[in-house]
Amino acid sequence: MEFKISREFIAQIEQLIRDNRAQELENLLQDIHFADIAEIMEELDDYEASYVFKILDSEQTAEALLELDDEVREKILRNLSAKEIAEELDELDTDDAADIIAELPQSKIEEVISELEDVEHAKDIVDLLRYDEHTAGGLMGKELVKVNENWNVLTCVKEMRQQAEHVTRVHSIYVVDDEDRLKGRLSLKDLLTTSTKTPISEVYIKKVDYVKVDTPDVEVARIMQKYDLEAIPVVDEMGCLVGRITIDDIVDVIKEEADKDYQLAAGISQDVEADDSILELTRARLPWLVLALLGGFISVKVLGIFEPAMKAHAELFFFTPLIAAMGGNVGVQSSAIIVQGLANNAITGGVIQRLLKELSLSLLNGLILAAILFAGSYFLLGYEVHIGITVTIALLSVIIIASLNGTFIPIILNKYGIDPALATGPFITTSNDILGILIYFSIAKLILGF
Amino acid sequence: MEFKISREFIAQIEQLIRDNRAQELENLLQDIHFADIAEIMEELDDYEASYVFKILDSEQTAEALLELDDEVREKILRNLSAKEIAEELDELDTDDAADIIAELPQSKIEEVISELEDVEHAKDIVDLLRYDEHTAGGLMGKELVKVNENWNVLTCVKEMRQQAEHVTRVHSIYVVDDEDRLKGRLSLKDLLTTSTKTPISEVYIKKVDYVKVDTPDVEVARIMQKYDLEAIPVVDEMGCLVGRITIDDIVDVIKEEADKDYQLAAGISQDVEADDSILELTRARLPWLVLALLGGFISVKVLGIFEPAMKAHAELFFFTPLIAAMGGNVGVQSSAIIVQGLANNAITGGVIQRLLKELSLSLLNGLILAAILFAGSYFLLGYEVHIGITVTIALLSVIIIASLNGTFIPIILNKYGIDPALATGPFITTSNDILGILIYFSIAKLILGF
Repeated sequence: MEFKISREFIAQIEQLIRDNRAQELENLLQDIHFADIAEIMEELDDYEASYVFKILDSEQTAEALLELDDEVREKILRNLSAKEIAEELDELDTDDAADIIAELPQSKIEEVISELEDVEHAKDIVDLLRYDEHTAGGLMGKELVKVNENWNVLTCVKEMRQQAEHVTRVHSIYVVDDEDRLKGRLSLKDLLTTSTKTPISEVYIKKVDYVKVDTPDVEVARIMQKYDLEAIPVVDEMGCLVGRITIDDIVDVIKEEADKDYQLAAGISQDVEADDSILELTRARLPWLVLALLGGFISVKVLGIFEPAMKAHAELFFFTPLIAAMGGNVGVQSSAIIVQGLANNAITGGVIQRLLKELSLSLLNGLILAAILFAGSYFLLGYEVHIGITVTIALLSVIIIASLNGTFIPIILNKYGIDPALATGPFITTSNDILGILIYFSIAKLILGF
Repeated sequence: MEFKISREFIAQIEQLIRDNRAQELENLLQDIHFADIAEIMEELDDYEASYVFKILDSEQTAEALLELDDEVREKILRNLSAKEIAEELDELDTDDAADIIAELPQSKIEEVISELEDVEHAKDIVDLLRYDEHTAGGLMGKELVKVNENWNVLTCVKEMRQQAEHVTRVHSIYVVDDEDRLKGRLSLKDLLTTSTKTPISEVYIKKVDYVKVDTPDVEVARIMQKYDLEAIPVVDEMGCLVGRITIDDIVDVIKEEADKDYQLAAGISQDVEADDSILELTRARLPWLVLALLGGFISVKVLGIFEPAMKAHAELFFFTPLIAAMGGNVGVQSSAIIVQGLANNAITGGVIQRLLKELSLSLLNGLILAAILFAGSYFLLGYEVHIGITVTIALLSVIIIASLNGTFIPIILNKYGIDPALATGPFITTSNDILGILIYFSIAKLILGF
């Protein structure tokens, strides 16, 4: 049932733009969902996208604007006057409008705000601009339905009708006192089934989940997920109700957070997408590669130290990539499980306990792998037993150290408030590479005595 | 405002259980949210958890049951009779009840169903059991509010009141024809502001997003995210309305999907958590390590072929881990970006275009890294220029090949319906390790001619 944008459809739009047949284009796009309008605009060039944008009604384009890629949006906004931008923002909820304004150059922000028609709306948007985008304040919108605890049901219903006009989806009715402090919430059911003269104070639910304006976004996401909430009220330092966050904004936070951890595990340090520019992609990828290269220098140096072993035991050097790679792989596995556990708040027990578990796990895995390696080096590759024993013991040691390393580092980073996901990916593989080679040749030296 | 479970609180609960002071325990836990009850139960042992479970009201425990870890839930359910389980399920929405039933042993399922009090509820649950859990049918619940297009507003409101009793949160009112086929939806606002005699057919919105029972869950998630939906109706093959999916179930799908991709990138093949048993964690991790080890055998073999080079150019072998690791790192970056792009439907353009972009990207990265390597090998490590030239050219080639490989493989897998995330992690690092070593020594042979 989803609308699929075909190449033919895009071609048709482009033709209509070339022929400047605005009315036909408008008719063609009239019934299309804003999310699809956004997708269409991303297929068009700057001029075409702006053309489409201008002929459509701001009711349709305002929401499409939100769905656009940052870059495309920026280009379109650059082609619009302050007044035109203000018209778009008038159609949006305060939180979405504030997000878009925040992306504008400082000089244009004031101009756009002065052009907003609804003064209340404008005040709310300005208020939202003060908050850090990664806090509850940065996520919240001002659109909500609230009633005073001193009212009765009848006054409530009247007031709510009026308030609801500005609110597209009513998630909850919040109850406040005369100072606007959040006291509780009201269920629509109770409101409809109680006599109109009943004071609100008798029917409202005093237990209400809320967050503060400075609660970090990931924390808000965790709470809303844990308690299955579709909306949560936000209060300021004084406990006054200042906004609400809805689940759709949280879905984005969850997605971004998961994507970020994934990218860090792959050695990508900024939030980039496959369609970003080569320069942006390089900025996100190169730093990790440089780090890995510098780590590589150390491994060259370490191997150089053991050059004397080459004459008697050249084969030791053939196993180096194998041992190093296994250390890297085990380390990434361990760190990924810990990082994900930390993100999902699923790590119980202390560090020691966790390391002991990882130790048993790596012993189990290590013994099985060591057995395969021993058999492989003897039967498959035809090396002598004492070489087999050397690489086997080295592999087991490397696996144990690498997995403890992969467990310990993220936990420690997290403890000191550093994102543990930084410890996954190239960082852990590179450090385990070096460590692995060092352990391997040290053990070889002990056993083979070169 | 979130409830924090302290060690003291758990100790207090354990003491009350030991002393068998059920009434006091019940009072203590009475006002605690089900999500917190679930967390408390996970801190207790089997006996204690079951004890807590039995003294609490099923209204509170039923929802807690949903939040529990699979293992803990399984243990608790094993301690409950079919009748006790049925009591829990009576409190749950059909989709949640079906999820729990599906985990029971076959013999117990029928028993539990026969104990369900509400026959309609039981029928709905049985109906839901037919669907694959990774489709819209497996996600949907039967609780919804629907009205007939031939009714008038008054009949509607009456019917809705009755239906809404079984529905905790009304997300949308769906309109169906006499055959129960989905025709559209009704906005609560329109319903409340139209004269009671108006036929529904005049006020309902004919455009409604929907999915089919067999639509895959990730596709449902994508559609709901794209169109910002809080609920979506589900129709069967005949277009009849059979259920609805709400956003909270979709949040779980999004989270699981992201977690899965992340784990695959780290070489973990099943959905495991840090708190799972050592055996489960081994099952998820060992296969990838064995794969990497077998790949390692190949790299040993390849290096063995180039043994003759050792005499004249021992230093070539010192650079092997560096070259191999860089190939692995670059490959993982490329594949991660493609995998994430595919998951987010953000890959536009064809394969050739994508490969060309990756080629420019890797050329840019590669040239910078090659320059650093050349300088490093000469100034830092003190190797001769012709060695520097050799490793530099090898690094550049390996980076280009590895990044094309990392881009190409996920796209091809995806094309043939295989999860592209399988191509990330150990798979790509291992294959790039081998490829890297082969390329490196081949180039060295060409340049140095050993």
